[in-house]
Amino acid sequence: MNLILIDPREIKDGSASLTGRRAKHIRKTLRGKEGGTIRVGIVNGLIGSGLIRRIEPGMVNLDIKTAKPPPAKTPTGLILALPRPIMLKRVLAQTASLGIERIFLINAGRVEKSFFKASLLSEEKLREYLLLGLEQAVDTVLPKISIHRRFRPFIEDNLAEISRDYPVRLAAHPGGAIKLSPALLPEPASPTLVAIGPEGGWLDFEIDRFTERGFGCFSLGPRILRVDTAVPAILAQLQLLRTLAG
Amino acid sequence: MNLILIDPREIKDGSASLTGRRAKHIRKTLRGKEGGTIRVGIVNGLIGSGLIRRIEPGMVNLDIKTAKPPPAKTPTGLILALPRPIMLKRVLAQTASLGIERIFLINAGRVEKSFFKASLLSEEKLREYLLLGLEQAVDTVLPKISIHRRFRPFIEDNLAEISRDYPVRLAAHPGGAIKLSPALLPEPASPTLVAIGPEGGWLDFEIDRFTERGFGCFSLGPRILRVDTAVPAILAQLQLLRTLAG
Repeated sequence: MNLILIDPREIKDGSASLTGRRAKHIRKTLRGKEGGTIRVGIVNGLIGSGLIRRIEPGMVNLDIKTAKPPPAKTPTGLILALPRPIMLKRVLAQTASLGIERIFLINAGRVEKSFFKASLLSEEKLREYLLLGLEQAVDTVLPKISIHRRFRPFIEDNLAEISRDYPVRLAAHPGGAIKLSPALLPEPASPTLVAIGPEGGWLDFEIDRFTERGFGCFSLGPRILRVDTAVPAILAQLQLLRTLAG
Repeated sequence: MNLILIDPREIKDGSASLTGRRAKHIRKTLRGKEGGTIRVGIVNGLIGSGLIRRIEPGMVNLDIKTAKPPPAKTPTGLILALPRPIMLKRVLAQTASLGIERIFLINAGRVEKSFFKASLLSEEKLREYLLLGLEQAVDTVLPKISIHRRFRPFIEDNLAEISRDYPVRLAAHPGGAIKLSPALLPEPASPTLVAIGPEGGWLDFEIDRFTERGFGCFSLGPRILRVDTAVPAILAQLQLLRTLAG
């Protein structure tokens, strides 16, 4: 936890009383004392400092002053075949920490149906996992996230509209012929949408739908990577392409 | 488990009897039947097929034929400040799956001393975690791994020798001035050594020792990444530089 994140609804008259994990972190890890200050951020808002007014067992009361904007998001959207629950938690935190602005969790032929029943697809849980990534990365702005339980309606109804926001579109697929290179990006900040499949890969039918929508397929090489390795690897490579295109 | 890995010592007269996790995987996940074949690999050896001769509760007996070499390693060495145990397991699997050839786990000022006492630093445990990455990535060759419990002796006694094998040397450090670019690599296959610090970063003293040994410092940007995000991100970026340098 490199940033204590506070929901605006928790703040009254410039002060907030934190309990649970955050209070414990301030007391035990940061060894906060009354009169000391810690770094705080307002969810979807500014970063600033919290002056510790009172510490009680299980509760820390802070006066909050904010000043600094959070780091810029990277103009990348991630389409991700829904991974198994234990991976979803990890991958959402990774994705938020890398500054991705939008996440589309979608169904695919090789996604187990049971993953969509998981209680961790509640709005509250998804938010919790994203916040873990933000507090790690010292960011405050939650990526927009949506869940699409059926592949075909996502492609036919949603993707046309989404694609308008992202002129560069890429899909990770074994044997994909496109070579990742800075030449793919007209500008360093070109909005880019990347689709990453389930661990067994996209079906041919699925990859055809993506290519019809203007996605270029690239390969990560012969190695099959777990989703918690593939996602940061691909997002970091796109980020590097942006700096090289600059 | 995309590849069933078998230690050469388990094979007698071309056949092996597997128990435990691998037997369960063959029976439950792969739904193997007597007479069927599955993909197998010999640890530090070839990839091939296993003909299922006998299935019993908790045991699978295979006749093994190997033919194909594993995928090439990437000529990258990773110097990693020892992460906390739960992260070490994950990061070693990630690193092995990405095809890294050597791993140096080292001490640093911001590494908690208790991490070195962890029972998972046994040779057996480290091997187990690396095998998890190999079986994921369909590789057989264990990265060479070594543990260095003191920073200064590692730098003074080991690093000079190690550096001779790696003409390109990089350290991840906030504010690092080097920009990752294909121009850093004389050739796509230039052996590259990359140093990744603890979550709190390297100390100035430590980064000075690396720069004295010819390491260039690069930054991943303003975001603080957890080690299980930073490691695949950096290794994947190096991999992309290799393909762009080609």
